[in-house]
Amino acid sequence: MLPTFCSQRGHVTALLLFLASLHITSGGKLLVVPMDGSPWLSMQSLMKQLKENGHEIVTVAPEVNLHIKPSDDLYTLKTYPVPFTQEELEEHYQFGVNEIFEELPFLVRVVKVYKMLQKTSDMFFSTCTSLLHNEELIRFLEQSKFDALFTDPLMQCGQIVAEYLGIPSVFFLLQGTACGLDSEALQCPSPPSYVPRVFTTNTDHMTFAQRVNNLLVYMSEFFLCGFFYSPYSSLATEFLQKDITVTELWSHASLWLTKADFTFDYPKPLMPNMVAIGGINCAGGKSLTQEFEAIVNASGEHGIVVFSLGSMVSEIPMKKAMEIAAALGTIPQTVLWRYTGEVPSNLANNTRLVKWLPQNDLLAHPKARAFITHAGSHGIYEGICNAVPMVLMPLFGDQMDNAVRMESRGAGVTLNVLEMTSKDLSDALKAVIYDKTYKENIKRLSELHLDRPIHPLDLAVHWVEFVMKHKGAPHLRPAAHDLNWVQYHSIDVIAFLLAVVLIVLYISLECCLFCFRKCGWKKGRLNKKSKSKSQ
Amino acid sequence: MLPTFCSQRGHVTALLLFLASLHITSGGKLLVVPMDGSPWLSMQSLMKQLKENGHEIVTVAPEVNLHIKPSDDLYTLKTYPVPFTQEELEEHYQFGVNEIFEELPFLVRVVKVYKMLQKTSDMFFSTCTSLLHNEELIRFLEQSKFDALFTDPLMQCGQIVAEYLGIPSVFFLLQGTACGLDSEALQCPSPPSYVPRVFTTNTDHMTFAQRVNNLLVYMSEFFLCGFFYSPYSSLATEFLQKDITVTELWSHASLWLTKADFTFDYPKPLMPNMVAIGGINCAGGKSLTQEFEAIVNASGEHGIVVFSLGSMVSEIPMKKAMEIAAALGTIPQTVLWRYTGEVPSNLANNTRLVKWLPQNDLLAHPKARAFITHAGSHGIYEGICNAVPMVLMPLFGDQMDNAVRMESRGAGVTLNVLEMTSKDLSDALKAVIYDKTYKENIKRLSELHLDRPIHPLDLAVHWVEFVMKHKGAPHLRPAAHDLNWVQYHSIDVIAFLLAVVLIVLYISLECCLFCFRKCGWKKGRLNKKSKSKSQ
Repeated sequence: MLPTFCSQRGHVTALLLFLASLHITSGGKLLVVPMDGSPWLSMQSLMKQLKENGHEIVTVAPEVNLHIKPSDDLYTLKTYPVPFTQEELEEHYQFGVNEIFEELPFLVRVVKVYKMLQKTSDMFFSTCTSLLHNEELIRFLEQSKFDALFTDPLMQCGQIVAEYLGIPSVFFLLQGTACGLDSEALQCPSPPSYVPRVFTTNTDHMTFAQRVNNLLVYMSEFFLCGFFYSPYSSLATEFLQKDITVTELWSHASLWLTKADFTFDYPKPLMPNMVAIGGINCAGGKSLTQEFEAIVNASGEHGIVVFSLGSMVSEIPMKKAMEIAAALGTIPQTVLWRYTGEVPSNLANNTRLVKWLPQNDLLAHPKARAFITHAGSHGIYEGICNAVPMVLMPLFGDQMDNAVRMESRGAGVTLNVLEMTSKDLSDALKAVIYDKTYKENIKRLSELHLDRPIHPLDLAVHWVEFVMKHKGAPHLRPAAHDLNWVQYHSIDVIAFLLAVVLIVLYISLECCLFCFRKCGWKKGRLNKKSKSKSQ
Repeated sequence: MLPTFCSQRGHVTALLLFLASLHITSGGKLLVVPMDGSPWLSMQSLMKQLKENGHEIVTVAPEVNLHIKPSDDLYTLKTYPVPFTQEELEEHYQFGVNEIFEELPFLVRVVKVYKMLQKTSDMFFSTCTSLLHNEELIRFLEQSKFDALFTDPLMQCGQIVAEYLGIPSVFFLLQGTACGLDSEALQCPSPPSYVPRVFTTNTDHMTFAQRVNNLLVYMSEFFLCGFFYSPYSSLATEFLQKDITVTELWSHASLWLTKADFTFDYPKPLMPNMVAIGGINCAGGKSLTQEFEAIVNASGEHGIVVFSLGSMVSEIPMKKAMEIAAALGTIPQTVLWRYTGEVPSNLANNTRLVKWLPQNDLLAHPKARAFITHAGSHGIYEGICNAVPMVLMPLFGDQMDNAVRMESRGAGVTLNVLEMTSKDLSDALKAVIYDKTYKENIKRLSELHLDRPIHPLDLAVHWVEFVMKHKGAPHLRPAAHDLNWVQYHSIDVIAFLLAVVLIVLYISLECCLFCFRKCGWKKGRLNKKSKSKSQ
């Protein structure tokens, strides 16, 4: 197939892509070590396409999880026991969600968030340990002879397993990483002067104060990172029987599929082994079920507003729910709200509570007027793709950063879900629905986003298959990985050149002094002689 | 078309690409200001595709040029007079070619090369001035209302015209630029510790001495650049009636189509508005004419060697030609040599001199065993695409760097065309033909190069049309352009933080001293008091 690919082009390229999509590719064997939660939901469209292309997929997940369920037709699921129960896991996440909406004094909140993060971190770590220490599973993986491993780097165990099995890996990273470890592991320059650090809510155009803040965060990450990632470094060192850090582990990934797209992300340096697949999940626009179609049609000329706080948050405390319900009642649009909690008593007639909604299909409907979202990257891309202006209510993680990105582009209004009043939400909704600039801005972003030479899903499938076929992608790995920090920044070379300059200066100076003394001495002697003669 | 593109994918994407290639796109108006020589030849496949997609193309070129001729079906050619004749131009280039092969003492060579470069530079500059000062032509361009300008940045006038007309531009850069001005204008980090500077022949893995050399070249460029580019800065400032440098001019390009491909280039940082289209011209593999088919078939099991020194060099001094002819006679393969000079008297029976050869089609033939090339990027990509190992004879410009790239990947042998003997060439040919590792290495590179999700030509067409349609690509422009050098490197922030630290330290120290003095004084007084009391 390759020589044909080379020797012809144009129509032929398109035809080949078309044929490729009709499963011409011969099957390989892929191991998937996913991250639970929304990243797993995002991964599945890609896995579906890989399966359609004839690859065999084995997914490894803990017995206790939120979304990773057995699948007859997509993958073989291999589970391993973990030292906590389903109830504990769900309770922990629900507790976390409740925490977000609780009004607490600042310090109390910090302590609570810290404790919750500590517990989440412990659960993650024990999950990872359980996988690596499960000898039977590891033996099975060894015997299975996979072509590659596909994982979310935040699921730290993935790369440790890839390293152990000696197979190449592809990372799927749709969220920001603590301490910007992705940039470090990729050796990708990220100047803190215009590349905002994760969790700072800075944009790419910063004031002096924001640049100070960004640099301070950047510097503090050197210390925080160690604290955050060091347990995994120790675990990997013990399991692989060699000294290795998490940064090194991550740097061994052959390829990174990242959420980047410059209608969403700020333009910044990239590396050759980064593939931007932002918008990979925007594949909807399917016709709605009768139930939803009826609701949408009944909305009349005013249209609909889609409201969801993501897969993790489907109910919120009653006080907040009532505030929101009051705001939703102030607009003439029909609101479809994904909500499973107790019905707020002040719910207006225009608001329909649903346990689940076909988010992308609703947003793709011409009657969609606004999208109230928690600003997860998945949802934001659906908003961009379908050109629906947004009211952003970030809850945790990188959602604050995501919200700022959309707001800075004039495509949405961000609200602080804790501090906002009913009026704030009502005003924000009216603004994005009736102020034409929001619609124009999101429409422009949407047009730019969708005008791409190849769909991100096809791009992702291509690169996973590339790594499977070629056993990695070493030609995309920069030589920077073979340099230490001093060498990378040319500090040794600069020191050497400075030393040379100083030595040359010193020698020149000494020579001058020597000549000067010589001349001075001669002159002195001459003077003396002439003096003694004249005496 | 866009909503469909969003709402569906997979097979649909392929089908859309297929349809797009069947000229669905509505026509725009493109102005082309090309660089003469081989870059122009490379540009044409792209222009052909754009024309097929229904765009109107106007090419602006000097009356006196090497390759830019009128075309009835591809573009409208607008020429302008320049203050030199066709004979002078051709004589100058032929003189330059002769210089390369002349054996001269080092210093004499340096002076001659300097004079030649000076003359070339003068010709370029007067061409540019003639274009900008041609009022009639400029008026025509103003009235033509182009959607975008397509140019080679080395043809400095292109961007000045784009700036004057207020239209977005796309750069087509298939060679290295003096002083690495492309990286600077793109705000693309290029750490000199592993990104070799142009014309150094360093690879991405450098010894300490090579890193010193690379950094010195990097630093010297700050001074050389000014000297090299300042006449154009003055010209642009005068023409545009505003202070502007060449770096600023280049930084305004919406998009850069570059020769990068990591089977050829070393992996290094990229920017979002850089599109790698390395291998764009490898579209051959067409069947050969009867004449060439007969020669190739007659070569028997030994096959053929393709030999060309590029579009600029078709004859060389007799002494060198005889050395080469002698070497070619030592191998059993049939050699097809593009050569228009006097026939060397020792030409062996296996060597066929031809005035022109279908280089890519010959390399694509299964009987191609080796490729003797001057290491221009165009030729090298044809070698990679068709997996033919190379003997590289770089002559000028970035060809030395290109040759080193291929040699460092074990896909070819580099020779110094001035110093090589007949035996060197013979040995190199035998090595690349009979040592299997060369063929294996180039085959691996070829497979990696050709396994891409979309053909570089389709990618290039997409992005030119993108800029035409969206009036630029400002969402791909990094905010780094809005920072000065001090801000970009956070030097002001670091200075501020240092100042804060120093002030805090100073105040703390003063406080301590104050307390110490206070205590010491009290103690002193107490001591005194107790002393006086005890007295």
